[in-house]
Amino acid sequence: MLQIALLGCGRIGQLHAATIAAHPGCALAAVHDVHAPAAEALAQRHGARAVASAEAILASQDIDAVLIATATETHADFIERAVAAGKPALCEKPIDLSLARVRECAARIAGSPVPVQIGFNRRFDAGHRAARDAVRAGEIGTLHQVIVTSRDPAMPPRAYYEAAGGLLRDMTIHDFDLARFMLGAEPVEVFAMAGGLIDPGLMAEIGDHDSAMILLRTEDGTQCHINNSRTAVYGYDQRVEALGTGGMVVSGNRTPHEMRRYGAQGVETAPPYLFFFTERYGAAFTAQLASFVQAVEAGRPPEVGFEDGHRALALAEAAYLSLKERRMVHVSEVA
Amino acid sequence: MLQIALLGCGRIGQLHAATIAAHPGCALAAVHDVHAPAAEALAQRHGARAVASAEAILASQDIDAVLIATATETHADFIERAVAAGKPALCEKPIDLSLARVRECAARIAGSPVPVQIGFNRRFDAGHRAARDAVRAGEIGTLHQVIVTSRDPAMPPRAYYEAAGGLLRDMTIHDFDLARFMLGAEPVEVFAMAGGLIDPGLMAEIGDHDSAMILLRTEDGTQCHINNSRTAVYGYDQRVEALGTGGMVVSGNRTPHEMRRYGAQGVETAPPYLFFFTERYGAAFTAQLASFVQAVEAGRPPEVGFEDGHRALALAEAAYLSLKERRMVHVSEVA
Amino acid sequence: MLQIALLGCGRIGQLHAATIAAHPGCALAAVHDVHAPAAEALAQRHGARAVASAEAILASQDIDAVLIATATETHADFIERAVAAGKPALCEKPIDLSLARVRECAARIAGSPVPVQIGFNRRFDAGHRAARDAVRAGEIGTLHQVIVTSRDPAMPPRAYYEAAGGLLRDMTIHDFDLARFMLGAEPVEVFAMAGGLIDPGLMAEIGDHDSAMILLRTEDGTQCHINNSRTAVYGYDQRVEALGTGGMVVSGNRTPHEMRRYGAQGVETAPPYLFFFTERYGAAFTAQLASFVQAVEAGRPPEVGFEDGHRALALAEAAYLSLKERRMVHVSEVA
Amino acid sequence: MLQIALLGCGRIGQLHAATIAAHPGCALAAVHDVHAPAAEALAQRHGARAVASAEAILASQDIDAVLIATATETHADFIERAVAAGKPALCEKPIDLSLARVRECAARIAGSPVPVQIGFNRRFDAGHRAARDAVRAGEIGTLHQVIVTSRDPAMPPRAYYEAAGGLLRDMTIHDFDLARFMLGAEPVEVFAMAGGLIDPGLMAEIGDHDSAMILLRTEDGTQCHINNSRTAVYGYDQRVEALGTGGMVVSGNRTPHEMRRYGAQGVETAPPYLFFFTERYGAAFTAQLASFVQAVEAGRPPEVGFEDGHRALALAEAAYLSLKERRMVHVSEVA
Repeated sequence: MLQIALLGCGRIGQLHAATIAAHPGCALAAVHDVHAPAAEALAQRHGARAVASAEAILASQDIDAVLIATATETHADFIERAVAAGKPALCEKPIDLSLARVRECAARIAGSPVPVQIGFNRRFDAGHRAARDAVRAGEIGTLHQVIVTSRDPAMPPRAYYEAAGGLLRDMTIHDFDLARFMLGAEPVEVFAMAGGLIDPGLMAEIGDHDSAMILLRTEDGTQCHINNSRTAVYGYDQRVEALGTGGMVVSGNRTPHEMRRYGAQGVETAPPYLFFFTERYGAAFTAQLASFVQAVEAGRPPEVGFEDGHRALALAEAAYLSLKERRMVHVSEVA
Repeated sequence: MLQIALLGCGRIGQLHAATIAAHPGCALAAVHDVHAPAAEALAQRHGARAVASAEAILASQDIDAVLIATATETHADFIERAVAAGKPALCEKPIDLSLARVRECAARIAGSPVPVQIGFNRRFDAGHRAARDAVRAGEIGTLHQVIVTSRDPAMPPRAYYEAAGGLLRDMTIHDFDLARFMLGAEPVEVFAMAGGLIDPGLMAEIGDHDSAMILLRTEDGTQCHINNSRTAVYGYDQRVEALGTGGMVVSGNRTPHEMRRYGAQGVETAPPYLFFFTERYGAAFTAQLASFVQAVEAGRPPEVGFEDGHRALALAEAAYLSLKERRMVHVSEVA
Repeated sequence: MLQIALLGCGRIGQLHAATIAAHPGCALAAVHDVHAPAAEALAQRHGARAVASAEAILASQDIDAVLIATATETHADFIERAVAAGKPALCEKPIDLSLARVRECAARIAGSPVPVQIGFNRRFDAGHRAARDAVRAGEIGTLHQVIVTSRDPAMPPRAYYEAAGGLLRDMTIHDFDLARFMLGAEPVEVFAMAGGLIDPGLMAEIGDHDSAMILLRTEDGTQCHINNSRTAVYGYDQRVEALGTGGMVVSGNRTPHEMRRYGAQGVETAPPYLFFFTERYGAAFTAQLASFVQAVEAGRPPEVGFEDGHRALALAEAAYLSLKERRMVHVSEVA
Repeated sequence: MLQIALLGCGRIGQLHAATIAAHPGCALAAVHDVHAPAAEALAQRHGARAVASAEAILASQDIDAVLIATATETHADFIERAVAAGKPALCEKPIDLSLARVRECAARIAGSPVPVQIGFNRRFDAGHRAARDAVRAGEIGTLHQVIVTSRDPAMPPRAYYEAAGGLLRDMTIHDFDLARFMLGAEPVEVFAMAGGLIDPGLMAEIGDHDSAMILLRTEDGTQCHINNSRTAVYGYDQRVEALGTGGMVVSGNRTPHEMRRYGAQGVETAPPYLFFFTERYGAAFTAQLASFVQAVEAGRPPEVGFEDGHRALALAEAAYLSLKERRMVHVSEVA
């Protein structure tokens, strides 16, 4: 029974706490947050202990692994400290908003056998994974095109936007990872188009985007398109499509249940898609944790490693350079 | 080029006229109606000649075949006259509302090589036919259950109801035939339940029904359910489902186009199903005609023969006896 | 935190144990089984205590409620004892295979305020419930027809069959309850047709059925059809359809994920439906338990009461009489 | 009854001939082809007259309009001659492969009231049109993103490829037009990525592409993505998706019928999509012709005019410049 300590008790930390607590193969041993009452409340809810100091957690003999769900700017630091302390870590994405910092972190943990998994939970969605598996198994022949549609249900608050590091590093980074997961090869070229279509005023003011379309290409020419929007009133829209010489697979959206309406105005109407990531990817969070626990217990590298976090961020950086220079950018230009 | 004469220029006759005129393998040579202006208008529309006497049509050397779309009570008579005149006939269902009259007609045309096809157009619907073909090809193993859903979009006018001969002889007769088509074996037992749910007052007054559920069973035990309603505000609902040991096939409804809506109230909303039989079974009428033309030209029996019309009516009679006596009825009791 | 004791540690008991253990509002305090090792193993898995005597459980001060998942023939007895002991009970269906015994039990617990809930879990399926709610809310106008499709994925072993009490009491009883749930009115007439189509030899030998079609009618004429099969190779098939004057709602089947395949042989292919009730109705079992816990804690009658168990069995009895006499049976004939 | 002459009796000409012949509001009066036997065969099939000289057709008093389905390089010339002769023209796309020639043609016909319609038949697909209408009607609020998926079922022969003028001018030009139709505003920026993924050898040899992904942006920032492939083994893949602040509409693919298969390997399997444009857009060709006939008879400009053909080609030119320079191109750079 793997004893896991949670660092960070905010929204996503609470989701991870519940996932850990419900998982039969591990236990939520301890929780920590810079804001002590948050840790205490979460500890109480799950029968864990609240620990005031992260250092104490990393030094604790009865903690087997850590889940890092703190503020983004502390991720790299905690990864380094966890590796130094010999604690396997499952860290929320992104590793850092700065590619230089990610590289520094990579250099510092290089050679260590301590597993570090990055929280690209979508890879564990049953539909996306079945699509990836079908592609790898050759079901659609040679892969030619991948299309990732990724739209949040509603605009986050301004405070979130200001801290998130930009649409492409915060939101699209999941899609860059999903594209890599589907492609099975590294995208080497990136072109990006982005704008403020939903809230042009706010986007102009904070220099960010709420809508984007991106093209990627791998060394062997496989093509990929990603589209993003911060608003989709019909529910969280998360689709992946892969076209090959032998067919196509599509991983689509899930409705909360299978009741359909038929009336004079329209037929086959389903309820809106699952609202957001806690609903849509709840099972994926569980599967991600299970994969982490298995990797730690089996002493093998995690399914989604540090380098995956690195490469997704490099794609985001290349996309920002493309946005600026309005041209195709080779990933080597930023890497 | 088969020269076809149309007897009867009412609503269904006009549909047949257009179908014949558009078919490359036959021509609408002549039309006849007891109401001469109807025949003249239709003749003019399609460049055919209006003929005042049905007898003249049956005696005409340049008419190769007739399509009988007259009032129901004249069907059997026209079949007999067409056969006597050596004119292949495609006759609208039902042959007659009286099983005795149908048997008399059968006796009179017995032994004649002149082809008589009954207008069970649904057998020619591409989806229903693909389902039947899959069943016959063994794709679902041994057939165990068939479910036929058949609902009109809206109540017909009272005048139609009064002339139609009762729900089970007018509407369900198509479903009895479709059940036979799918089952590939004769139903021998019938149980029926029917009522006036949509317009209880009118149904009570005229002694008819607007909603029904029926069970059938073949000699070898295969089970079949039919449900009928005279109202379905979401469009003409025409489905066939077949369950076997190896799987299931379902022939469903068609939307006028493939546009789907996604909004805050629901997703995947299709436009209402094709409104009624002219829309849904338009292509089936064409395929039915093509089959008739081919059979006539090849000198082989039609795909849907007089006996099919007879047996569907026998099932309706058995269903009426079941309704009356509230028990399972063996078809031999009415046949 | 409601302390629940589980009586019966077989397959369904183990499912309930896991459901109770995972539910935040209650705890699995104790488990009992006539086969002590089964209880001990289950107790250990969930950190509960194994209790050798059911009497001890019913007498225990720290047990708030019981979940009865023992052999069918003990259900009524345990209900009576739980009520006598003042312990709210959630009892698996059926109450008993004998309608007389159910009535005796009803008489014995009559007037007691102790809540007894019968385990008709399908009422708690999100899709079925949404369909029922839509009907009650008037979304489809006046209800006219209900169609329940209920097919198990594969034949149970002979031993199960021999103990189950007959297809209509064991399997269809769920559908009788679901029909009542959807209809919102009592079916008063029943007609049944059943046979041994999947394994005719075994069915003939043990006098049971593996395939059935049933018709029901309420006092006001609303029509209902149920079809059952013990085999559906494409997965557990659980559908409910309701037609009204204003439209239709359909609660359909769920696939394990939303990946679809498109190839030269066919398109839009989904993976087979969730295999059986543990997969399809897992969430419904959880919702059923939550409803029981809430009812107990709020001191209000359970959503699905003893009388619901009684009436579903009465419909099964009426159906058996109909099978025997091949006629429509009024429920009052058996009640 | 509009008397139409067809210029060009190749594959697409034959399709137009059949469409004209079947349309009740017009007649196929004459046909012409540089290869006289082709014209004669087609004339005979439809009861039209074959005319050896195009000039004779344009001079003929009893010809009301022409449909130009000749080789691409003659389109502009025939448009000019038809306009000079006062014959309304429906001309297959593209107007010409050279943007300069298109501009020259535009200058020559400028100011003439003779209607010229360009054959962008997809605008007349019922699903695409319903999607466009929903967008225009404000059903999805403010439009933000459009995604056009357009994939042919199978690679054309080499000879076709060599004459077609390049993927973006031959195939994507339809999608550029469809994008403009959906966007309701001019795309002003274009980025293109294309390659030879299906037949890399042939593509390298003839300097063409078989797979492409393109991004477009309008002046107000609305984003659009087009993806193309010359192969889709599951059938002609023609989809349009539009996302707005208030929802989404999607126009999808059509199956030949509505039969679905359910088996142990998968469920809800539909037959492959309609094979190619004659099947999928057959009704659209008919609607396109009807629109042309109505415009001519009403004396109003056609729904899809010369300028639409011009602008679609300008987008193709901009896309080729983008391909070459690997950067976003403003349409004004080529226009």
